[in-house]
Formats: sequence, structure tokens, C-alpha cells
Amino acid sequence: MNNFKMISVADGARQELHDVLGLTGAEISVNVLPAGASVPFVHAHKQNEEIYAILEGEGNVTIDEQSVSVKAGDWLRISPSAKRQFFASATNALKYICIQVKENSLQGYTVNDAIIL
Amino acid sequence: MNNFKMISVADGARQELHDVLGLTGAEISVNVLPAGASVPFVHAHKQNEEIYAILEGEGNVTIDEQSVSVKAGDWLRISPSAKRQFFASATNALKYICIQVKENSLQGYTVNDAIIL
Repeated sequence: MNNFKMISVADGARQELHDVLGLTGAEISVNVLPAGASVPFVHAHKQNEEIYAILEGEGNVTIDEQSVSVKAGDWLRISPSAKRQFFASATNALKYICIQVKENSLQGYTVNDAIIL
Repeated sequence: MNNFKMISVADGARQELHDVLGLTGAEISVNVLPAGASVPFVHAHKQNEEIYAILEGEGNVTIDEQSVSVKAGDWLRISPSAKRQFFASATNALKYICIQVKENSLQGYTVNDAIIL
């Protein structure tokens, strides 16, 4: 059956989901930055908006010229062209997910796309 | 500046993110089913694949004719046409996120879409 696929992501591991789950509308990564660590580069995107969810810990993200504090429960939408870099705090690891989707690709959703049975 | 948007999702609340974050490539909801509760209907989708991440707790999901146990750390990709319904266990609430994206909408991603600065 090709109707679903499931995996379990071990705690503390970085995991990219596109290939293992057969995703066709998103790439999703589960990430952990140890305390004091950062993503080692600044990046932007060509087509994709990124949505970040902070699952555990706290840190900062630099978006263009702005530095923003983040903590568990925060969600961010970042435009493709924005320059971004994530930093864990000095004392806490930062666990987060990153969802890449093509900007403006969503059409109907929820009540406009669901079929209630 | 329109380069990013951020919100904080309170623990225990259901929150839909599309409108508050200005998403254009996904709808995302953060959900909590109390112990013993279920989504009150079975549903499928017209165009959207759904990706579920179990954040806390445990439960079951029925996908077409199959019942699958789920727990924190599990990720599922469910095809648009599959009939699905989520159930929390009798003793534990189930906290999960649901990501709707248009099937086959992703083009480049990660190294094929990123600009390293």
C-alpha cells in the first residue's frame, strides 16, 4: 500500500524526511544545535519559504539585519530571499524543525481541500 | 519588513498557522487530543498530502483499513486520498502537528534551492 509511510525520529538526531517519507510537497528536517553552537553558514532560498518550529530550548535567529530571540513554542515563516542563521543559546540546546515549501504553491486547504467521510 | 513573521503557540491550544504567519506554501496546525478523545470525523483530501509529527503522548491513527500505533517522535506522510482519523490513547493526550502541502508542488530543495552566503 502506498497510502502512507511512517518513521520514528530518534531524539537528538538530525533527520531529513523528504526521501525516507516520500514527500512530494515539502522537505522537512528535524535539527538539534548543541548549546553554544550555530548553523555554520548564512543562507537564503531561491523558491522556497521556510517555516521553523522551535520544539525545545532557546536561542537566536538572525534574519537579514535583525536578531530575534526564539524559544520552545515559537513558529516563524521566513521569506525565500531573507538571509538567516540559527544559534543555540550558550546554555541550552535548540531543537527545531524546518519545513521547506515552494512559495505560493498552496491552493485549497482545510475546508476547501478536505473530504469529510 | 515582510521578510519574516513569528508567533508563539501556547501549550495545549489548537492553532492554525496559515493566516497568522502569512504562509503561502502550507497550512500547519498544532493540535492536542485529550486522553480518550479522537478527531470526530474521518477525512481525506483532494489535492494535499498531509505530514503529521507526533510531539507528545501516544495514540492510534486509522488509515484506510489499517490501524497504526503512534507515539512521540513519529512522522507520517499520508496520501491525499487515504481516509484517516487520529485517536489519543485512553490514558495520554496526543499532541501533534499536521502540515498540508499540495502534492507534487515541491521543486528544488536544500542544496538545489539554497543560496549559501
